[in-house]
Amino acid sequence: MTTRAPVLIVGSMAFDDLELPTGTFANTVGGSATYASFAASTFTEVRVVAVVGDDFDAGTLAALETRGVSTRGIERAKGKTFRWAGRYDADLVGRVTLDTQLNVFADFQPKLGNEHSQCPIVLLGNIHPTLQAQVLDAMTGPELVVADTMNFWITGEPEKLAALLPRVHVLIINDEEARELSGIHNIRRAAAEIRRRGPHTLIIKRGEHGALLFDETGIFAVPGYPLEEVIDPTGAGDSFAGGFIGYLAAHRGKIDPHVLRTAMLYGTATASRCVEGVGTSKVQTLVLGDVEARVVQIRTLFELPR
Amino acid sequence: MTTRAPVLIVGSMAFDDLELPTGTFANTVGGSATYASFAASTFTEVRVVAVVGDDFDAGTLAALETRGVSTRGIERAKGKTFRWAGRYDADLVGRVTLDTQLNVFADFQPKLGNEHSQCPIVLLGNIHPTLQAQVLDAMTGPELVVADTMNFWITGEPEKLAALLPRVHVLIINDEEARELSGIHNIRRAAAEIRRRGPHTLIIKRGEHGALLFDETGIFAVPGYPLEEVIDPTGAGDSFAGGFIGYLAAHRGKIDPHVLRTAMLYGTATASRCVEGVGTSKVQTLVLGDVEARVVQIRTLFELPR
Repeated sequence: MTTRAPVLIVGSMAFDDLELPTGTFANTVGGSATYASFAASTFTEVRVVAVVGDDFDAGTLAALETRGVSTRGIERAKGKTFRWAGRYDADLVGRVTLDTQLNVFADFQPKLGNEHSQCPIVLLGNIHPTLQAQVLDAMTGPELVVADTMNFWITGEPEKLAALLPRVHVLIINDEEARELSGIHNIRRAAAEIRRRGPHTLIIKRGEHGALLFDETGIFAVPGYPLEEVIDPTGAGDSFAGGFIGYLAAHRGKIDPHVLRTAMLYGTATASRCVEGVGTSKVQTLVLGDVEARVVQIRTLFELPR
Repeated sequence: MTTRAPVLIVGSMAFDDLELPTGTFANTVGGSATYASFAASTFTEVRVVAVVGDDFDAGTLAALETRGVSTRGIERAKGKTFRWAGRYDADLVGRVTLDTQLNVFADFQPKLGNEHSQCPIVLLGNIHPTLQAQVLDAMTGPELVVADTMNFWITGEPEKLAALLPRVHVLIINDEEARELSGIHNIRRAAAEIRRRGPHTLIIKRGEHGALLFDETGIFAVPGYPLEEVIDPTGAGDSFAGGFIGYLAAHRGKIDPHVLRTAMLYGTATASRCVEGVGTSKVQTLVLGDVEARVVQIRTLFELPR
């Protein structure tokens, strides 16, 4: 029987200063947990665990609550919220980090209440693999663990990450991270090696080129949706993860290779909606109809007309 | 009614010196017309127009003839065959050109006999746009003109290329070339601009990420097939074009958006077979069953299992 499960999302909340070709946007609300929570809340109930400083934006917390996101797990610490500043190239593909201030995020210790520990489905955002493991330790056996990571942890904490992987069902990383994690350049053999280390499903994000899913059934490819205009790529990957896990949570009890592949379409659609606006502006007002319309558009990309 | 039409292919024939991660291969037979002719001959009769020097490999000409490729249009000029030398990165994505010697190709003047001028379908390989135009001038109204070009002509001969485009039905280029040709970074708007200048169909090759087709029906995306092992990417684009046009020629009389999209699958499959060996080794022994098996594998990449 299919039921709609709540999702636990653990990750960062931040202020971003964005230099985009269309202008400079200071103090934009960002962070992996923020994007993923807005995205997932299009599909299901979300409970978020994160830390913000005493300068964080109350309007964003209210916007999350309005979408059914429980914000009780967002710790308000004394000090400043995590800040990131970046400048995008004119083509919106390349970007440089201008500044990173961890602030209260430096001492982030995820604290789970019952509403969090009992979630059957969890998205472990890109945080220290030890913290990701602590979240799983505090949970009462989640049915589905989806995790993100990055080069910083792959090279800096290889043993901690290796210990985490057997506890992860779905790992979501990009091409470069897959190559670094596996030590194998060929993406197909890299995927096989990573799956051997734990996750039954590996998703490789390829930006504008879409995403690949590898599981025991084979390989599934979703093309990126060629938008007429991309405004801000920030949060695309987190919105993908949020849309992906949100769709899965809405299909609890029948998550199989078919549903996992369909969730890839929904994640891709969610990400493509996100990048149509600055920061979280699009993803925080997303409704299911918007995502479904984009899913239909994405499907036409690989349908043969008769 | 569907009939099988002969294809005219005009382009380069060459010797390549390849430095691959798996070894160095000197005097490998290459060239756009060579790869495309071997590829297209898997599907239909091919007639090639090119120039080689008196040092060219007789075995390759015999191999072409064996596959039903008419080589009477290959001029044997006094002097040396076009040579290219390149070194691939360990990842087989980046490559540097070490040497280019145009030799007899510098004075290439395509000479068409009746068997060439009456072909209903033509692939204009990547040569000077003036030569491409001369080929069309010499033909008795081909039904389908497919053309390739490159940055060298886009920047060096913009007017000649602009004059050619209204005579081209299907243009095949890569992302970077589409951006340079249109002056627009966004790939979707770039495609619309290029189609406005002539070709009803634009195909954008994206290497390992597959290819996109833009026509009046919309956009079609074919993912690259993730191979366990890529040996030599040389000639992948030309094999794509050859497989694509070969499939179309085998469906003369019913070339429509459906057939054009299916031809994309066959072109992608042909290219993915090509790169499994050094030089033309794989594409020159290709049989339809090999391509069809790969088409099935590519289709599973975007099929939702039930």
